[in-house]
Parts: sequence; C-alpha cells; structure tokens
Amino acid sequence: MESGERSPRDMRLRAIGWVRNELRDLHPPQGTDFSAVESVIELLTEFTPALEGVADYSHLIVIYWMHRVAPGDVTLKVHPRGLGQMPLVGLFATRAPVRPNPLGLSLCRLLAVEDNRITVRGLDALDGSPVIDIKPYIPEQPPEWTVPPWLRPFLR
Amino acid sequence: MESGERSPRDMRLRAIGWVRNELRDLHPPQGTDFSAVESVIELLTEFTPALEGVADYSHLIVIYWMHRVAPGDVTLKVHPRGLGQMPLVGLFATRAPVRPNPLGLSLCRLLAVEDNRITVRGLDALDGSPVIDIKPYIPEQPPEWTVPPWLRPFLR
Repeated sequence: MESGERSPRDMRLRAIGWVRNELRDLHPPQGTDFSAVESVIELLTEFTPALEGVADYSHLIVIYWMHRVAPGDVTLKVHPRGLGQMPLVGLFATRAPVRPNPLGLSLCRLLAVEDNRITVRGLDALDGSPVIDIKPYIPEQPPEWTVPPWLRPFLR
Repeated sequence: MESGERSPRDMRLRAIGWVRNELRDLHPPQGTDFSAVESVIELLTEFTPALEGVADYSHLIVIYWMHRVAPGDVTLKVHPRGLGQMPLVGLFATRAPVRPNPLGLSLCRLLAVEDNRITVRGLDALDGSPVIDIKPYIPEQPPEWTVPPWLRPFLR
C-alpha cells in the first residue's frame, strides 16, 4: 500500500436498511426505465427517529451496496452501459458497477415516509440491496457543465 | 438484525486514494467556504488507467470516508450545521457527519487530471481522507424540488 502513514482504520459498512422493489434480474433488459421504478427502503427500526423532517425534501440521494456484483470484479476500462459501440473509457469516467468499492448512488423522488419505510421513485438498486446512507438532495446544479460526447445522447 | 435473510456479506471498503488539501482542522471555522478549497486526490497508481476520459467531465462526485469522525459516533437527531438556533431534526434530513456509515459526498469542479492525481475545487473533505469512489457528474437537476424552510437561507 502506498501512503501508509495515512492508512485508514478498518472501513467496514453496516446496512441501515434494504431496498424492496421489482428489480430482481441482475441484468435488467436494456432500456429499462429506472426513473419509473418505485422502491420501498425498509430501514432498521432503530433509525426511525433519524427520519424526522426527511419528508420536507422532495428528493433524496441514496447510497447502496451493489450486493449482486461479484467481489473483486473490478475492470479498469469499460464500454459505457455495456454497449460495444461505445468507446472504451476509464472506469471512473462511467458509473459501471465493476468498481473497487461497489457503491451505487441514486437521486430519487421521495414519495412517502411512514415509520421506518421510505417510498421513492427512480432508485436504480436491485431488490435486496443493502442501504448504506440516505442524504437529502440539496440543489447545486453547476451553472455550466461538460460531459463526454458519448454521454450526450443519454442525457434527459 | 432484522431482515436476516437479506443480510449482506461483509461490506468492507478499500481506499482508492487520499485527499490532500489545507483542511487540517477537525472543526473548520464556521463560514469556511469549501467551494473555494482546492484539493488533490492522489489515487493509488494501479487505478491510473481508470482515469482515462475523466477529463472530459467538468464535475465529479467524490465519495470519501470521514476518517476523523469517532467510530460509533452516531446521533439520531441533530441541529443542522451545529447551530443551536436551528430546529432539531432527524439525522437523515441533514448531511451531519455523525452517520451510521461515515461517508461524505461532494460535488466538485474538476480542474486537472495528471497521471494518478486529480485536482478539484469544492471538495469538503479534510486532508488525509480516504477516497472511496469517484463518479462522473451527470446533470440531472430535478425540474422541481423542495427543501425544508431552515435550509433555504443556505442555498447558493
């Protein structure tokens, strides 16, 4: 390991809850519209008090563990979205799941909060994914931005 | 543990690099303008190939480990931004660091990519923070959004 003097202590995550939805296929059909999928996040009940005030937001950012990705399945160069006609680019220029740390990040529309259950739309996690963190969405769209040419056709 | 049948395998993170910047105080002075701070992310050199194409983006999302938060320091209700005059709200209605999983998330302006070094502006991580993931920023500002009244004065 490089930078040993700054070596972190053991970085272990705990699930704060799990995703419940209809996404059970490891490889959903190309063209699946995740933005329409509704999911329920079932939090461990110990965290119910931490949800107070969450319903004042319209959107949440959900960080989850991509539990169906094989451990150690890391690829440094990928064709975005698994499409062979796309250029081969660096992993960190994409959101491909074959990452050193298989964390997914999703901006979701909040539909309801009830006890320890949060209903959202647009979460791209598979059913059963452990939820790692929930952060409120705070608008901070940059006034100007750039993306690679290959990504432009996919922007909504 | 609830939902035992969906209990995840061991979720352990590895640092892919470290943050280098001037933020050394655990509690930066109130009013510190993180948006102006420049940081260098030093990736482990094994990941240099995964940076190809990253420079085509103007912004990145950096996930990092808040290594200076005491382990187990979780508070379910907080005053946002540590301000006593703010209402006491649920942890998940804030970005306070005392989370079950101390992951920070920051939208940054990309300034340069050189070999295994990424220079960014606006990363709110302290110096020495382990970097967990780097994802490209893909514009997806919701057309409409809501935040709590207490947050509005802080929106840029």
